Amino acid sequence: MRIARFWLNDEARFGMVDGPELRVLEGNPLIDGIQFAHDRIALKDVALLPPVTPGKIVCIGKNYAEHAAEIGEAVPDEPLMFLKANSSLNRHGGAIVLPPQSTQVDLECELVVVIGATAKNIEPDEVADHIFGFTIANDVTARDLQFEDGQWARSKSFDTFCPLGPWIETDFDWESAQLSSRINGESAQSSYTSEMVFDVPTIVSHVSKNMTLYPGDVILTGSPAGIATIVSGDLVECEIEGIGTLISHVE
Amino acid sequence: MRIARFWLNDEARFGMVDGPELRVLEGNPLIDGIQFAHDRIALKDVALLPPVTPGKIVCIGKNYAEHAAEIGEAVPDEPLMFLKANSSLNRHGGAIVLPPQSTQVDLECELVVVIGATAKNIEPDEVADHIFGFTIANDVTARDLQFEDGQWARSKSFDTFCPLGPWIETDFDWESAQLSSRINGESAQSSYTSEMVFDVPTIVSHVSKNMTLYPGDVILTGSPAGIATIVSGDLVECEIEGIGTLISHVE
Repeated sequence: MRIARFWLNDEARFGMVDGPELRVLEGNPLIDGIQFAHDRIALKDVALLPPVTPGKIVCIGKNYAEHAAEIGEAVPDEPLMFLKANSSLNRHGGAIVLPPQSTQVDLECELVVVIGATAKNIEPDEVADHIFGFTIANDVTARDLQFEDGQWARSKSFDTFCPLGPWIETDFDWESAQLSSRINGESAQSSYTSEMVFDVPTIVSHVSKNMTLYPGDVILTGSPAGIATIVSGDLVECEIEGIGTLISHVE
Repeated sequence: MRIARFWLNDEARFGMVDGPELRVLEGNPLIDGIQFAHDRIALKDVALLPPVTPGKIVCIGKNYAEHAAEIGEAVPDEPLMFLKANSSLNRHGGAIVLPPQSTQVDLECELVVVIGATAKNIEPDEVADHIFGFTIANDVTARDLQFEDGQWARSKSFDTFCPLGPWIETDFDWESAQLSSRINGESAQSSYTSEMVFDVPTIVSHVSKNMTLYPGDVILTGSPAGIATIVSGDLVECEIEGIGTLISHVE
């Protein structure tokens, strides 16, 4: 099932994607479960919002060996955690705004876990029960500031630097889906989730042993190799097989 | 004026501290301004909550030269930003729970700016208009994991690792207040806010140029030298002259 979030009559609502339509839902499916309202609306007629407003955005660094190598870093012994500010959240179809203090902003297409139930100290075999679904993020990164600061928070937390969407797929096989990104139609990244150093159950279990995860929290599971610099005017696509394509334009 | 937050009849409410009493407020003073309700309640009869539930917890690293030196780091050229997870928030009087994966957890007493009005790209001379008030945080840090990870987010984001309070002081002179911390009554840190490398207006302006600050967001302005390890059973006090004393016990 694909769950989107969008504006309807000046209100943020959730809906189930049903072909070219959205079946509008009552309340928040993360809290209230799936309850259909009476309305249907054409998908093309609405602006999608980020499909979730996370309490926190946890990220996993250096989780694809080839990407760790391309930024000159070793693969860690356990999942390396960092945080992106919530204020960086962006919608499918939105603009990535390049900040004046950076001269190199890169895209990073990543599989995102959306937490469905509070998770604290859970084991990998318990993880599936705590996941609501999966979506796509572009972990946009000011690469020059990432290395200048040493700490990664700022370079990844500029406003608009976390496009998320287009929707949450609740039925998704995370084991071997293809991830790819394109700039103006030209291939940038191309990899498979099977290339992750730490897989989804290992990551969620690990994070839950270091901080409690709440419904709506998201985990960005790391970027594959092929990161590429984006410039003003670019059209950026992040695609994950079985979920969809997250599109942004660059301002 | 001192603004506290506390439980009253199963509801989180705000109040103005008035000697030994709290004058209960209607709504959230960050949104609704100061509107007194009719009730008064004895301060000693309530459990205080964190005085704000921040959208994000921004931290400034290495902002006192002696502290940078004691952790073997140089003072940066501009404020160094990192993030603490919201889920680490803790209340005055609460317990700091030591995680099993760390063998060295340290206290860090810090002055906290509470944002009152949305701040984006503001200059230092505009900062005062965007501050609601000041409070105290203990930026509890698993020192071993901080250096092991390189990224600081995890080591500072365990549940309970951000005691905040006891209240927000809206009339506070940030320029030369004394900060001090004690473990079981014995002095750990002792410094002055005048020892900051970057002062409050410089910090808030800098952060606002890197990410939008919203009402309720907080900025921890860095720890002075004298960080000390806490162990199970300790009573920890973080005091800032003109604000108060934030107390935690260690589990």
